[in-house]
Amino acid sequence: MKFNYSKHVPNTDNDATGAILAAAADPKVISLAGGLPAAELFPVEDFRASANRVFDEHGAQALQYGGAAGLPALREEIIRNFLKPRQVEGAVENIAVTTGSEQAIEQIAKMFINDGDTVLVEAPTYLCTVDAFKSFGAKIVTVAMDDDGMKMDALEEALKAHPEAKLIYTIPTFQNPTGRTMPVERREQFVKLADKYGVPVLEDDPYGAIRYSGKAVPPLKHFDKTGNVIYMSSFSKILAPGFRLGFVVADEGFIKTFTIMKQIADLHSDNFSQYLVADYLAHNDVDAHIAKISKLYQHRFELMQSLIESEFPAGVKHSNPEGGMFIWCQIPGDIDTQALFDACIKQGVAFVPGDPFYAGESESGTMRLNFSNVDDDTIREGMKRLGAAITKFLNK
Amino acid sequence: MKFNYSKHVPNTDNDATGAILAAAADPKVISLAGGLPAAELFPVEDFRASANRVFDEHGAQALQYGGAAGLPALREEIIRNFLKPRQVEGAVENIAVTTGSEQAIEQIAKMFINDGDTVLVEAPTYLCTVDAFKSFGAKIVTVAMDDDGMKMDALEEALKAHPEAKLIYTIPTFQNPTGRTMPVERREQFVKLADKYGVPVLEDDPYGAIRYSGKAVPPLKHFDKTGNVIYMSSFSKILAPGFRLGFVVADEGFIKTFTIMKQIADLHSDNFSQYLVADYLAHNDVDAHIAKISKLYQHRFELMQSLIESEFPAGVKHSNPEGGMFIWCQIPGDIDTQALFDACIKQGVAFVPGDPFYAGESESGTMRLNFSNVDDDTIREGMKRLGAAITKFLNK
Repeated sequence: MKFNYSKHVPNTDNDATGAILAAAADPKVISLAGGLPAAELFPVEDFRASANRVFDEHGAQALQYGGAAGLPALREEIIRNFLKPRQVEGAVENIAVTTGSEQAIEQIAKMFINDGDTVLVEAPTYLCTVDAFKSFGAKIVTVAMDDDGMKMDALEEALKAHPEAKLIYTIPTFQNPTGRTMPVERREQFVKLADKYGVPVLEDDPYGAIRYSGKAVPPLKHFDKTGNVIYMSSFSKILAPGFRLGFVVADEGFIKTFTIMKQIADLHSDNFSQYLVADYLAHNDVDAHIAKISKLYQHRFELMQSLIESEFPAGVKHSNPEGGMFIWCQIPGDIDTQALFDACIKQGVAFVPGDPFYAGESESGTMRLNFSNVDDDTIREGMKRLGAAITKFLNK
Repeated sequence: MKFNYSKHVPNTDNDATGAILAAAADPKVISLAGGLPAAELFPVEDFRASANRVFDEHGAQALQYGGAAGLPALREEIIRNFLKPRQVEGAVENIAVTTGSEQAIEQIAKMFINDGDTVLVEAPTYLCTVDAFKSFGAKIVTVAMDDDGMKMDALEEALKAHPEAKLIYTIPTFQNPTGRTMPVERREQFVKLADKYGVPVLEDDPYGAIRYSGKAVPPLKHFDKTGNVIYMSSFSKILAPGFRLGFVVADEGFIKTFTIMKQIADLHSDNFSQYLVADYLAHNDVDAHIAKISKLYQHRFELMQSLIESEFPAGVKHSNPEGGMFIWCQIPGDIDTQALFDACIKQGVAFVPGDPFYAGESESGTMRLNFSNVDDDTIREGMKRLGAAITKFLNK
């Protein structure tokens, strides 16, 4: 059966990312391509205790339909555990729970984007956001970055050229794919520029809590005095992604409209998992748990970084993330990254080529390496193979 | 902050349904307005056993990211427990797990509907589907029903008038809001007509398993030889709605495209809940559980039906559902149902007025009564109040 799909459906069978992940999934291949958190740190036994308490204390109620904006007890825990420590103001009415932050991205895309509308994103940026924006017909305009994230002169230029833009999407902290973080001064400037041009900001902050070095920087939302910043984060990287729980923090009026749209999308997020995570947060020290994650990721990052220096050919540049899950590398010269990827797969190691992260023109020789979900031996062997493959490729 | 939303956002603050539900939520009001399953039958202790087994057997894996199409073990259980008994053919590749069937509706709307496209629905039909269709700019064309569901002459007329229609949406079994069921012959005719005009059918079957009288009728999907029928159902009414787990059954090619769109929507549905429900289905007799639900609903339906006859004024017509959760009543004469609703609220009883279920012109004096989530005493007192309020209203 050949269906006549709408233009929301991508009209290509060319799933480049799917092909990369499929190649990386070969058991003979060491994958540094993933974006998964370290499963060995998921607090399985604490979750078991929480699940049993939820069955004891709430029983059938936790299994019944719930409200579209999310369980009030979970929203209270979000304020106490995530907003207050990050200096983000917000009451229960400013929060909506989402089915992972992916749902927040898709629903906000739906809420803002008519076919042909412009949105601004970092170059490079998170793949799935670009897919979500494109599914509503967005024209994607990219804004250049440097080591400190989105460049403010480039942003202002883009805003001048596209004052009609509907959204600016940014991951200002430990960005995916680059690991870069925007400093305080630039954040203040960002919020002011967005206000000046009247373009709302969608701030995606799934990694911000996982900082292992440097000084904490408040989210853009902290500097927002007008309600122009829509902030979103997720439990996927700090607790576990399987529950698909994220949240949006914004003006009460926005949250009301968002909730209407969320209701159309899936009525509400998993009620049992919301009870479970609310119970976990009420009974455990989540900061101590996040400190454990950060310590492990720091170790893995430092190991991977030292191996870039010892195993990779000279001249390879890389980002120096102070948190999160990714290092971004750039190999000098005019590199066909897909050919490099194929050469590496032959050597039994995978990364994600940089190209798919660029909604516009890509930068040559870029690659994303993940360190959160690989143990020391795997990092050592993977980086050795990668170094050898890159050296061979460059000397070809 | 006033945002410039897209046309996907309804441009009205007039939330009629919200107002109805708010009035019905008053603790002094007996609500026959809901659409909730009976929480006292949720198998809480069986779910607790399953949750503990999932922590034992799968641990962190059940909390990690999963595949967008859903847990293969759950899809196997769907085939064994739901498709085979309903004579619907399908392999794992024909199934995608969804975040409640609401997500299936929204994503399928997105996949088929461009702004201005026509879709056909029953008059009356499920409210939230109409909201989802409208959010993508659909022009809704309604097809008349009789006691046996959508009328085939009316469907053919609509298809002739709108051969460009993108979808026909139907709830053929224990329909919401009417409780009506389409007989076998009409189902065969329906599938043939849809094939003839080349318009895909979205068959929504959340209630079909809960039959307490009459003879089982296979879903439309059973009669589908061309792959033109997209079938969807849910665990919400037979296990528990809190997990937000539903599923779509269709051609493998459709499921592949659906999975790409689902990935953009929320990456995948709650992995832990998928493991939990798969474990429940592997360790429990779900048919025996559904038989318990059906027995309780039969009792409540028969009680409510007998009270329509004893408490309501003569001439009130009502549907005679053989399963599901709703009775549909029609009060004779030219009735302002909203005024009747207001009068009933004053008497301390709520129903859902029929009007919002009609995407087109509504039928006068219609109302939906729910019997699944109210105990005997509440049904007795609620129906007494309702009968008195209707009688008073008619004699005014």
